[in-house]
Amino acid sequence: MSDPSYQYLNPPYRILLGPGPSNISPRVQQAMLAPMVGHLDPYFFNIMDDTVKLLRTLFQTENRLTFPISGTGSAGMEAGLCNFLEPGDVAVIGVNGLFGERMVDNALRCGAEVIQVTAEWGRIVEPETIEAALKAQKRVKLLALVHAETSTGILQPLTEASQLAKQYEALLLVDTVTSLGGEEVAVDDWGIDICYSGTQKCISCPPGLAPFTANQKAMEAVEARTRKVQSWYLDLSLLSSYWSEGRFYHHTAPICMIYALHEALVLIAEEGLEARWQRHLRHGSALKAGIEAMGLTLHAQEGHRLSTLTSVRIPSGVDDLRVRQKLLNEFGIEIGGGLGPLKGRIWRIGLMGHSSTGENVLLFLSALEEVLAAESYPVEPGAGVKAAIQTLTKKAETK
Amino acid sequence: MSDPSYQYLNPPYRILLGPGPSNISPRVQQAMLAPMVGHLDPYFFNIMDDTVKLLRTLFQTENRLTFPISGTGSAGMEAGLCNFLEPGDVAVIGVNGLFGERMVDNALRCGAEVIQVTAEWGRIVEPETIEAALKAQKRVKLLALVHAETSTGILQPLTEASQLAKQYEALLLVDTVTSLGGEEVAVDDWGIDICYSGTQKCISCPPGLAPFTANQKAMEAVEARTRKVQSWYLDLSLLSSYWSEGRFYHHTAPICMIYALHEALVLIAEEGLEARWQRHLRHGSALKAGIEAMGLTLHAQEGHRLSTLTSVRIPSGVDDLRVRQKLLNEFGIEIGGGLGPLKGRIWRIGLMGHSSTGENVLLFLSALEEVLAAESYPVEPGAGVKAAIQTLTKKAETK
Repeated sequence: MSDPSYQYLNPPYRILLGPGPSNISPRVQQAMLAPMVGHLDPYFFNIMDDTVKLLRTLFQTENRLTFPISGTGSAGMEAGLCNFLEPGDVAVIGVNGLFGERMVDNALRCGAEVIQVTAEWGRIVEPETIEAALKAQKRVKLLALVHAETSTGILQPLTEASQLAKQYEALLLVDTVTSLGGEEVAVDDWGIDICYSGTQKCISCPPGLAPFTANQKAMEAVEARTRKVQSWYLDLSLLSSYWSEGRFYHHTAPICMIYALHEALVLIAEEGLEARWQRHLRHGSALKAGIEAMGLTLHAQEGHRLSTLTSVRIPSGVDDLRVRQKLLNEFGIEIGGGLGPLKGRIWRIGLMGHSSTGENVLLFLSALEEVLAAESYPVEPGAGVKAAIQTLTKKAETK
Repeated sequence: MSDPSYQYLNPPYRILLGPGPSNISPRVQQAMLAPMVGHLDPYFFNIMDDTVKLLRTLFQTENRLTFPISGTGSAGMEAGLCNFLEPGDVAVIGVNGLFGERMVDNALRCGAEVIQVTAEWGRIVEPETIEAALKAQKRVKLLALVHAETSTGILQPLTEASQLAKQYEALLLVDTVTSLGGEEVAVDDWGIDICYSGTQKCISCPPGLAPFTANQKAMEAVEARTRKVQSWYLDLSLLSSYWSEGRFYHHTAPICMIYALHEALVLIAEEGLEARWQRHLRHGSALKAGIEAMGLTLHAQEGHRLSTLTSVRIPSGVDDLRVRQKLLNEFGIEIGGGLGPLKGRIWRIGLMGHSSTGENVLLFLSALEEVLAAESYPVEPGAGVKAAIQTLTKKAETK
């Protein structure tokens, strides 16, 4: 019937400096080789409990409902919206990049009325804009913001937004897909009610799980729903029955992925949260220093740049695709291109988790210099690497 | 804040003879160690194409839309329902076990009107019942049946149901979570319009993906929808844009899981579909012969028993939980208990994929004899094993 030929798996080794996935530690890979047990095995329950505990530490929360959703970060986003929004609810959503737009699409599919608070792709959503939107509505159920916009490299400030959410009695939902494990995220201290992430970025676990947490206030909103959550698979009440003492069977947990996540979280615990954020900051700063020393322009608004993902404007006359293909084919380095209105206008360079190393910064800058020279873009030889080394050898700085 | 202690991963080795997950081949585990690449890497596109091709062979279909959904079998179920059902649509759903019930719950969450066609848990849904339900409605959008009911061990016949679906112009959706890769599934020849499965049963890949296929007729129904699919994550139109030539980014595919699935499908291709079904039949028959020779009673309706999962009535006076705990703790063997109305009344013994071996049949029967003796249940020593060996050494039979 169909073509019977197939190939054997033999992927090339890539240095993953795109917007995710990042490279993973050999210890995380090794964890996936551990013997498979059943999803109702007493041993697996221990690993589940441990994973929950480690996730709480990472999210800096004491929320009872804390566990990985069995899908990628996008499933986490959907769970974060569809459990809390019902037809007729009003949601105010920050949109300054692709993932804000995706939240809007998701929320509309829940039947919610969506008010977008926008900013240019590459700038933060201003607290004043958020307040104006909240003020204009009779009742806002949910305020949703992207902490780290993967499409632009922006780190959204949350302090004022959190105060505003409280003031206007809206739940605060925050997307930390590209920040959790690389930038500080303090769910309880920052007053975040609902928070999700993905495993394949700063946690450096393979893609496939979405760490998730929600507080008591958020879960009371779920209990007060007038109709069932539209997704059975992402229904938090059902999921939490399996992830708590009752162990009520819901679906078969992705065992090997949980093994991998557990090991990745142990690695984070061993490193320490503070040390890990400092590492991401140090390498992100070195990369940015190198980029600017090469005469290139950073895209994201100054003062609000992610350590974990750096967006760089593509100089005019330089071919986006050709540069990225050369980096991939000649140096084994993956970086990301721009999305939406930034397509062809920026590159996105991730330094996340296991990929966030000084060696990768220097290798990337060297490779970029070589590739840009071939594009006839004038770069002072060695300037990028030199600036990066200066930053790398400085003492740990604070943001 | 929280308890800082954690353990290192060190699961016991289990022989997985429950309702899934099954044990996985070392080659499948090994595949997860292959270097991670990005979800938009040209190499990964090759592996995606290959995976699609291998899945088409397994489903016995030429359907263009054939790929793994990035979630477990339950996500496949939800995708199978929420893409095709809109508020007001009528769905006729066969319910003779837990997974039929779950379909009903899912379909109701899509706003559909659901007509249940029921049978006792352990019997097939009769074609006459299906026809009566179809006839009584003005227009049925979807007829949904579970091919292999994991909660009871029943193999649902599909020939008449498929004819009826055509006659009444309903889409035919079939759940093959516990059959695909272990029992014959012929999507095109059997006139199945929408079909999904899970990776962790007869495919013997870790849990986390749901192989999925839908034909042109089904996709025309998606195109004719009046509103967007309520799930963004499971929206087949968006997913198929990523899984076809356009490679339009939707979500980050679970790379390592796709590696594992690819290898599991290569193993199936190497074994051959016919040989694989015969292997499952041979071992399932040997188990059943052994069970009956021990004086135990099979639960599922005769003539409609799965090769892949055998349900056995628990003799009166025998303690369900104690038996299963002894099997687990003293022999490292996992089997499943009953669900819903069958809780405490049956055991469910899976012989799926890599777990379906003659050695496992003999080991299980020996262990069960020992454990039942401790429960003072009278078993003729060696009777089960002897009957199983007789079946195993017979020439390949046909069902």
